[in-house]
Amino acid sequence: MENIVKSKDNPLIKLYQKLSSSKKERLQYGLFVLEGLRITEDALREESGLSHLILTCAAAEKYGDMLFQADLKNARVVVVSNELGRKISSTDNTQGIFAICRIPQEKNIVFSENGKYIVLFGLQDPGNAGMIIRTADALGIDGIIMSGCCDLYSPKVIRSTMGSIFRMNINIENDTERLFSLLEENNVITSAAVTDSGALPVTDYNFGGKQAVFIGNEGNGLPCDISGRCSGKIIIPMHGNINSLNAAMAAGILMWEMKRVSQSEA
Amino acid sequence: MENIVKSKDNPLIKLYQKLSSSKKERLQYGLFVLEGLRITEDALREESGLSHLILTCAAAEKYGDMLFQADLKNARVVVVSNELGRKISSTDNTQGIFAICRIPQEKNIVFSENGKYIVLFGLQDPGNAGMIIRTADALGIDGIIMSGCCDLYSPKVIRSTMGSIFRMNINIENDTERLFSLLEENNVITSAAVTDSGALPVTDYNFGGKQAVFIGNEGNGLPCDISGRCSGKIIIPMHGNINSLNAAMAAGILMWEMKRVSQSEA
Repeated sequence: MENIVKSKDNPLIKLYQKLSSSKKERLQYGLFVLEGLRITEDALREESGLSHLILTCAAAEKYGDMLFQADLKNARVVVVSNELGRKISSTDNTQGIFAICRIPQEKNIVFSENGKYIVLFGLQDPGNAGMIIRTADALGIDGIIMSGCCDLYSPKVIRSTMGSIFRMNINIENDTERLFSLLEENNVITSAAVTDSGALPVTDYNFGGKQAVFIGNEGNGLPCDISGRCSGKIIIPMHGNINSLNAAMAAGILMWEMKRVSQSEA
Repeated sequence: MENIVKSKDNPLIKLYQKLSSSKKERLQYGLFVLEGLRITEDALREESGLSHLILTCAAAEKYGDMLFQADLKNARVVVVSNELGRKISSTDNTQGIFAICRIPQEKNIVFSENGKYIVLFGLQDPGNAGMIIRTADALGIDGIIMSGCCDLYSPKVIRSTMGSIFRMNINIENDTERLFSLLEENNVITSAAVTDSGALPVTDYNFGGKQAVFIGNEGNGLPCDISGRCSGKIIIPMHGNINSLNAAMAAGILMWEMKRVSQSEA
C-alpha cells in the first residue's frame, strides 16, 4: 500500500475534484467519478473501466478486503486520510470510497424487433435522469437515448442510477435531425408524452412492435416541433386539479405500460 | 405595509426557523412552513389555514399584487429585507416568499366502496414521501395512511408534494394495531408490496373493490410481521440484476395499476 495522501493539492485529488464539478473537465479527460461502496462494487463487477480507486484509511480497513477480492483490472489504489476523504465527499456521512472511471466508448443501440426505448429530450434534473435510468434497467427497457439533457456523467446522475449506468444501453444524440434519422432508419414507432387533452390515453395506445417514447423537459415538456414529428401523442390520464406528474414518475409509468403490454402480447 | 424586518432575532423569523428545522416545534405549535410562489398560491387557494405570509421587499414588489388578490383569510403579511429572506431560505435562489400555516385537524379517511388507498409504512425519505403524495393526487388515489414515516410537515416533504399536501386525504396512524383495525373495520382488502419471488405479479392481482397497498421502508421494505398480516403479497416483476425500484417509483407504478384496473372495470 502506498503512502497516505493528506493534501488537497495532490494531483490525483485535484483531478477528482475537477471531474466532480465540471462537465468540461469530464469531457476533456474522458473520465468521471463515483462515490460509495455499492456503486463502486457495481463498477468493478460490470467491467466499467475503473482507473483509480481512492479509499480513506477507515474505508481501507473496513472495506479493503472485500473490494480487493474483485478483479481491479489494473486500477491504481490510493489511500487518503479520513479528513481528506471528508473534504472531497459530496455527502455528509461519507463511506470514504471514491473512484475515477473512464467514460465508455458509446456503443450504438441495436434496435430489436419488439424493443422498447425511451428518448429523454431536454431533461435537466440529474436526479430525474438517474431515476429514469434505474427504472429503465429494473423494468427491462432496451435502450435510452438522451438528447439535450443534463450531463450523464455528473455525480448526481451517477448516484441516482444506483449502478444502472453500467448496465443500460445509453446513447447521447444532441442533434435532432440525426436523432429522428436514426429512429426512422430503424423503423422505430415514436410517440410523444404530452399533457395536451387531445392526446391518446396511454392505456388506449398500441405499444406493439419497436417503440420509442419521448419524454420532455421538467418544466416545459416537449417542444411542439418535436412532439409533432413523433408518430403519436400519448397522455397519462390525470385526475382533478394537478396537471403534471414529476418527469421521472411519468417516464416510469410509461415504461411500465410499454413493457406490460408487450409482455401480455408475448 | 408594515416596517421591514431585518433581524434574525425578530420573534416571527425565529419561529419560522424553528418550524423549518424541528418536528418537535411543529407539533408543539401546530404550525408548519412553506416556501415558494406556487405552493403558497396553492395554500391560498385550498383554504389551508395560512397564518403568516412573509415576503422579501423584492417579492412584495414582484408578486405582491398577484398574491394580495387572493383571499388572505386574516393571514398577517410581513415584509422582510432581501438579505434576511436569503438567510431563512432553504434554496440557493429564493423567490422570497414564505408562509406559516396551521397543521390541519386530521379528518378520518372515508373508505368508499371501490376506493383505492396506499399505506406508507416506515418510509423515511422526505423526497419519496412528497413524490408519492403528488403522484397519488395526480392519479386519483382516494387516501394515504402514513405509519412510522418521516414527518409529513417537514419542509422537504411539503416542497416535493407540489401542493398536493393541500388536496390529498392523508391520515397518520403510527399504532400498528389501530392501523389494521381501521382497515379491517372498513373491509379494506390489503396487499403488501414486496420483492420476494413468491409474491403475485402485480399484473395478476385483482385490484377490484376497496383496496389498500402497503409500501415499506426504502432500505428494508416491509417488516415480515406487517406483510404477513396483509391479505396478499404483490411484486412488480423486475428484470435482470437489479432487485429494487426506488420506493416512490414502486409506489407510483402500484397506484397506477390499482387505478388502471379499476378504471377498466368501470
